[in-house]
Amino acid sequence: MNANIPNYRSECPLSTALDVIGDKWSLLIVRDMCMNKARYGDFLSSPEGIPTNILANRLRRLEVTGIIHKKLYQTKPLRYEYSLTTKGANLLPVLQQLAIWAHQHVPECGVPPEWFLSAKPENLVKNY
Amino acid sequence: MNANIPNYRSECPLSTALDVIGDKWSLLIVRDMCMNKARYGDFLSSPEGIPTNILANRLRRLEVTGIIHKKLYQTKPLRYEYSLTTKGANLLPVLQQLAIWAHQHVPECGVPPEWFLSAKPENLVKNY
Repeated sequence: MNANIPNYRSECPLSTALDVIGDKWSLLIVRDMCMNKARYGDFLSSPEGIPTNILANRLRRLEVTGIIHKKLYQTKPLRYEYSLTTKGANLLPVLQQLAIWAHQHVPECGVPPEWFLSAKPENLVKNY
Repeated sequence: MNANIPNYRSECPLSTALDVIGDKWSLLIVRDMCMNKARYGDFLSSPEGIPTNILANRLRRLEVTGIIHKKLYQTKPLRYEYSLTTKGANLLPVLQQLAIWAHQHVPECGVPPEWFLSAKPENLVKNY
């Protein structure tokens, strides 16, 4: 995926949402941030095994589209911590509905944790 | 995307959902079916301009994963109509949350229609 702001295929809001986060990885990074993961190595350690080049691309893309922001926490070498913006936190209902759907319809998958299903976007970010 | 049943990257229900429908096109076909589009040409005529090879791949994939089913309506040449299963109709809350999110956060996009936001999965399929 191109790391710049996407070209929107139509004015349809669903299509627009998919232009921004319609891939297999972006929402997993958002999920990790809902669990207070913040650093590059945290995301790499998730069980799906995101490749480093895809992680770098998606972090850049999520930043450009205003879903996450990054903050320097170390200068030698440069290291960043990532967190959700309000726009990013507001993806939580999408994540919850996707998890509910998979749990209902895909026998292979696990149970969504209760804390996750009852979480609120406003509790995921300071200054919501 | 491979048109067979996906390999699941983890037991996480969100990850599992994205293994099934985590791409830019699958949910647009589900959206079209929510609007009673049923035939190959109907999907091709949507404003996003899905390429024919991607449409064929995604219809096959949605069928293999039990989200849609197809019914023959013409034999010479073979032509099919597609419709949502219960599993497919239950993606509606995901679509609704994605549309609400884009409408709230992406200024370029249009307003989700009221009928869409108030639609219910059980009204999208016979024998729900």
